[in-house]
Amino acid sequence: MNKINLTMLTDFYEITMANGYFRTEMRDKEACFDMFFRNVPDGGGFAIMAGVEQLIDYFKNLSFTNEDIDYLRTKGYFDEDFLQFLLDFKFTCDVWAVPEGTPIFPHEPIITVKGPVIQAQLVETMILLTINHQSLIATKANRIVRAANGRPVMEFGTRRAHGASAAIYGARAAYIGGCAGTACAIADRDYGISALGTMAHSWVQMFPSEYDAFKAYAKIYPENAVLLVDTYNVLKSGVPAAIKVFKEMQPKKMGIRIDSGDIAYLTKKARRMLDAEGLSDCKIIVSNSLDEYIIRDVILEGAKIDSFGVGERLITAKSEPVFGGVYKLSGLDMDGKMMPKIKLSENVEKITNPGFKKLYRFYSKETKKMLGDVITLFDETIDESKSYTIFDPNAIWKKKELTDYYVKDLRVQLFDKGKCIYESPDIEDIKAYCAGEIKTLWSETLRFENPQTYYVDLSKDLWEIKHDLINSYTK
Amino acid sequence: MNKINLTMLTDFYEITMANGYFRTEMRDKEACFDMFFRNVPDGGGFAIMAGVEQLIDYFKNLSFTNEDIDYLRTKGYFDEDFLQFLLDFKFTCDVWAVPEGTPIFPHEPIITVKGPVIQAQLVETMILLTINHQSLIATKANRIVRAANGRPVMEFGTRRAHGASAAIYGARAAYIGGCAGTACAIADRDYGISALGTMAHSWVQMFPSEYDAFKAYAKIYPENAVLLVDTYNVLKSGVPAAIKVFKEMQPKKMGIRIDSGDIAYLTKKARRMLDAEGLSDCKIIVSNSLDEYIIRDVILEGAKIDSFGVGERLITAKSEPVFGGVYKLSGLDMDGKMMPKIKLSENVEKITNPGFKKLYRFYSKETKKMLGDVITLFDETIDESKSYTIFDPNAIWKKKELTDYYVKDLRVQLFDKGKCIYESPDIEDIKAYCAGEIKTLWSETLRFENPQTYYVDLSKDLWEIKHDLINSYTK
Repeated sequence: MNKINLTMLTDFYEITMANGYFRTEMRDKEACFDMFFRNVPDGGGFAIMAGVEQLIDYFKNLSFTNEDIDYLRTKGYFDEDFLQFLLDFKFTCDVWAVPEGTPIFPHEPIITVKGPVIQAQLVETMILLTINHQSLIATKANRIVRAANGRPVMEFGTRRAHGASAAIYGARAAYIGGCAGTACAIADRDYGISALGTMAHSWVQMFPSEYDAFKAYAKIYPENAVLLVDTYNVLKSGVPAAIKVFKEMQPKKMGIRIDSGDIAYLTKKARRMLDAEGLSDCKIIVSNSLDEYIIRDVILEGAKIDSFGVGERLITAKSEPVFGGVYKLSGLDMDGKMMPKIKLSENVEKITNPGFKKLYRFYSKETKKMLGDVITLFDETIDESKSYTIFDPNAIWKKKELTDYYVKDLRVQLFDKGKCIYESPDIEDIKAYCAGEIKTLWSETLRFENPQTYYVDLSKDLWEIKHDLINSYTK
Repeated sequence: MNKINLTMLTDFYEITMANGYFRTEMRDKEACFDMFFRNVPDGGGFAIMAGVEQLIDYFKNLSFTNEDIDYLRTKGYFDEDFLQFLLDFKFTCDVWAVPEGTPIFPHEPIITVKGPVIQAQLVETMILLTINHQSLIATKANRIVRAANGRPVMEFGTRRAHGASAAIYGARAAYIGGCAGTACAIADRDYGISALGTMAHSWVQMFPSEYDAFKAYAKIYPENAVLLVDTYNVLKSGVPAAIKVFKEMQPKKMGIRIDSGDIAYLTKKARRMLDAEGLSDCKIIVSNSLDEYIIRDVILEGAKIDSFGVGERLITAKSEPVFGGVYKLSGLDMDGKMMPKIKLSENVEKITNPGFKKLYRFYSKETKKMLGDVITLFDETIDESKSYTIFDPNAIWKKKELTDYYVKDLRVQLFDKGKCIYESPDIEDIKAYCAGEIKTLWSETLRFENPQTYYVDLSKDLWEIKHDLINSYTK
């Protein structure tokens, strides 16, 4: 999928605006845009960045084909000189991004694009589509994985995903967020995300009895026989048939999967039945419309579960399937200087942060925990040898002096004048980095509901520019 | 996208089961499977079938590549004879489907696949993925379109879709469900779904003032100037600047778009301002986190809206983003006869309908309205000259005698022994057919909440087979 040209996967207004800029003095201007989001899905304390690798592929493949131009010509809005401009189009922007697997927070510039207005505008739709989708799934998967409290969670959602890309990149994002693997074979083939799978109810139905079905399976897969025990009746027929087959066939590893019914009750009963027959090595896997809340609750109830398969509620992020990232103009070149730009709104939360910016993350030297993030102007540096005062941009009297910290420039540059200068890490490294960064969050931020709000502040210089711009528009 | 080989986009268990069948006496058996769903999303009265065209493409491209085989070999589960079997794989099944745009109801066999066990099983994941996704979006779009009560609804969700396929096929499904067009350019290029787009807030921010931005736009697009009026303040600056530009530039068609704030209040005020200046031809378009409930409510409040742009809540089906279609074994060949198969469950609703079946829809000759659907055995026919008794399969004393009806065999055959024998209609025809079929539903079924449950009954012969099978397993 990473070689598909998705240049035309764009809101049509990006093209009408491109033509508009082409016909005005904006044609040769430079601008900068930021992607940011306003709310963490499910009321959580943080989100997880994902999708950067696919975004890089998109930028690399960005070009209009003759077929695209022929189509655009039929719309009747565009003159030939603009169509020729598109045919000659080459991406020459600078792009910065927060690396995949990083915890991210509202209002942070997680992507910045700087370059010719027409180009920097045109890429809006795919930036949002890619990062919104994968960050949504990585964030949701991480909640579910944390609820499972050390028990492996497999991503099982392919059949309920919103199309092929949702399945494949959803499996990838879920893995970054902490899933142990996927049921999706193509995600294994293309991204090396370990895929597993055993049997459906239909396998059991095919044979004269559950016993015959299980025995046939264990004979073919003696290394690891995981038997689906809920086709007819879990405790009366499924588990007894599985026990009989395990004892006869002695598979090297063994498990049962329960896909319906009350999993707290059934797993406790099944565990006792297995243990009574000396099968305490047999794993119990459950998979039936699970999410972080159900997993947390059944564990609290003492359910005997070794691992979870989580499908539709993960792959669609069912409880909140929208990651509301937006992409806004933050600066426009005027005579060689990037002038900050703002979008106002009746709603204070919707006012944008102007200017070409940088994002710093402060960590405590002592605890290694995150202390807060500060958005600064691009050329601001932070001297770790000095204390740094942060303040709430919406309540500037709330100040805090940071000392004994170290600071990270949180973003990497992906493209330099259109040339890719970043190599996406291996997915195992992204996953490990994600798990490590989450350990640097305070537990108050990890809470599923009503978490402590993490500090995302503005530097004094940036705050003053923002304040002046707001005043200039509202006076 | 329709030429992509998605053979490996499958749950891994389809492949482990294929290998399992290959190694048992099941290898050369025939089976039949049905796809059906159990609940209409959002508690609605019906869903809309979509995705059949993409499913046909999938079947046509079904084959394993050398790359796939090399990957599967690395898993270590499969012997060379099975891998060679996959490399030689050819799809030879029969497939039936309800045509796209048709209202569908729980428990109906909307897809049936009949053929060699290994093949009919292998295609499960992609059948579910494709039909679940597109039917979900077509169903949601239709709710939103009905709420808009004749006002056009544009699909604006690309940036919040779950990846590229969700955006493109979501736009297609939304169009089938009744949307007037999309913002998604590639959906226009590839499926002829009219794409429109004008400007983002960034266009307005680029220019020294809203007036300058609007004037530049109206100069370039004099045929249809739709101006986004909420970058700074809708009523104080956006609408006055738009009015000034409309009067100066006299575009042929004109409109304003409002993307934030209280749309009932703002559109009423804006309408009055426009009308007072003689601009009653100017359309008002709104687009801000809309869905069927908000649209219904703002229309009831007297909002002055000519058309809607609906984004994230449509393209993700936010209120219920899962269409829970399943694919279950219904029959297995035994000595040349298709023996009915059933899956039991503690939950009556989850017990499957066994056997190789047909789906009939009854319409009243007098009113042309749908009377009910009946699932029968495949070789049952219905004599329209005689009355037909339907009964509730879960409460068989509830009977109804149908007279003066005509009946439709609701499904078409897509593949005959692997050969495609169905040509997908033009999307305009699918859309028109959908709108026409929805007119044949009673208004009680159209209700958004707590609709009347439409009759989906079983023929007497099918009911008896099901009953006997349940008894044989539970006695």
